[in-house]
Amino acid sequence: MTAKKAVVLVSGGLDSATTLAIAKSQNYTCYALSFDYGQRHKIELQAARQVTKDIGVVEHKFINLDLDNIGGSALTDSNIKVPINGLSQDIPITYVPARNTIFLSLALGWAEVLSAYDLFIGVNAIDYSGYPDCRPEFIVAFEKLANLATKTGLEGHHFKIHTPLINLTKTEIIQQGLKLGVDYDITISCYQPDERGHICGLCDACRLRKEGFEAL
Amino acid sequence: MTAKKAVVLVSGGLDSATTLAIAKSQNYTCYALSFDYGQRHKIELQAARQVTKDIGVVEHKFINLDLDNIGGSALTDSNIKVPINGLSQDIPITYVPARNTIFLSLALGWAEVLSAYDLFIGVNAIDYSGYPDCRPEFIVAFEKLANLATKTGLEGHHFKIHTPLINLTKTEIIQQGLKLGVDYDITISCYQPDERGHICGLCDACRLRKEGFEAL
Repeated sequence: MTAKKAVVLVSGGLDSATTLAIAKSQNYTCYALSFDYGQRHKIELQAARQVTKDIGVVEHKFINLDLDNIGGSALTDSNIKVPINGLSQDIPITYVPARNTIFLSLALGWAEVLSAYDLFIGVNAIDYSGYPDCRPEFIVAFEKLANLATKTGLEGHHFKIHTPLINLTKTEIIQQGLKLGVDYDITISCYQPDERGHICGLCDACRLRKEGFEAL
Repeated sequence: MTAKKAVVLVSGGLDSATTLAIAKSQNYTCYALSFDYGQRHKIELQAARQVTKDIGVVEHKFINLDLDNIGGSALTDSNIKVPINGLSQDIPITYVPARNTIFLSLALGWAEVLSAYDLFIGVNAIDYSGYPDCRPEFIVAFEKLANLATKTGLEGHHFKIHTPLINLTKTEIIQQGLKLGVDYDITISCYQPDERGHICGLCDACRLRKEGFEAL
C-alpha cells in the first residue's frame, strides 16, 4: 500500500513543527512548503529547513512571494512596529492581509500537481492573536473552495484541510509535540529576532510561546 | 462623494481589458494587479501595462510569484507543450493548478490594505477552456471565504467579487468592450507568442479570440 501524500505548511515555528510531526505520525508522506514572503523574521526559514530535516520530509519547497509589495502588516512593512506590550483585544497589526488564504492557495496548487489530497496547516484558535484566518469557519470555507477550484475536485477527489492544533492550548500543543519527539530548540516563534536569531521576548509570538512552556 | 475603489486583475488579454473598462464605466477608482508568475507568455505583461495606461488606473502593481516552481501546466512548465489541435472536452493541460484561487487571494490581500471592497476578475464560463476556477460556483465560494478570511470581513465590511463577463459569449464581450472604447489591438491572448509578440493562432486562447471576432 502506498502511503498517502500530504502537503504541510512549515514556517519554522512551534505550531507548524508540531503539525508536521503529527502528519508524520499519521503515516503521511510529507511534502513541506515554506514561503519567503518578505517577512521581517525571514530567519524563520532557516529554522524551517532544520525542522523538516529533523522530522523528515520527501521534499521541502520554498516559494518566493513579495508580500512586502502589498504591505499593510508589521510583519511585511518595516515601517510598522511590532507591538511589544502584550496581547490586545483587537486583531493586532501583525495580521498579514489574506496570508493564510494565499498560503493555502499555493499549497493547494502544489498538492494538485503532486496528487496529494491532504493539506496540513498549524492554525490555532485558542492561544492566538485573533487572526481571522486561523478560525475553524475559515478552514471549512477554504476546504469547500478547494474542491470547487480544482480539476482534482471536479474529478471527484476530495481535498481535506487538516488543522490538528486548532482547538488545543499552546501547552497542549507542546505536550503533543514532545510526545512525538519534536525538538523545539530548533524552532523559532519571534516576530522580530535579530540577524543571529536572538528573540525579542516581548512580541505576541514570544509571549504565547513562553506562557505555553511555563504552564507545562 | 469619494469614488469606490476596486482591485482589478489584468493579464493583458481581451477579457481582463474588457473587465477593467467595465469597472471604470461603473465609476470605480481602479487599482490593477498583474502577476509575473513564470508564465510562458510573459510578454502579456507588456500588454497589461499598455492596457492600464490606455484605460487609466490609479496604480498598477506587479507581483512576482514563481508558479513555475510548482509547474503542472503547459503555461508554467516549458517541458509541457501547449495543445494546438482545438478545444477538447476535458480540462486542458493549460490549466494552472489553483491559479485563480492564488490570484484572487493576493488581490484580496491588496484590497484589504487599500480598503477596497470590490474585486473584478474577467472569468468567463461560456467560451472558455473549462477551467474549474472560472465557474460561478467557484466565485461564490471565494467571496464567502474572503469575508471569513479577513479583518475587514470581521469588521462588517463586505468584499464582493465582480465577474461581469461570466455569462457572456466571446462576441458579446468584444461588443461590450468596443462600446467602451477598448483597443483590442494592444491586448494579447495567445498562450505561446514569440518574443516579439507574434501569436501562434492555434492555441485555445487564439481560437476563442478569433472565433469571437469572426462572429461579429
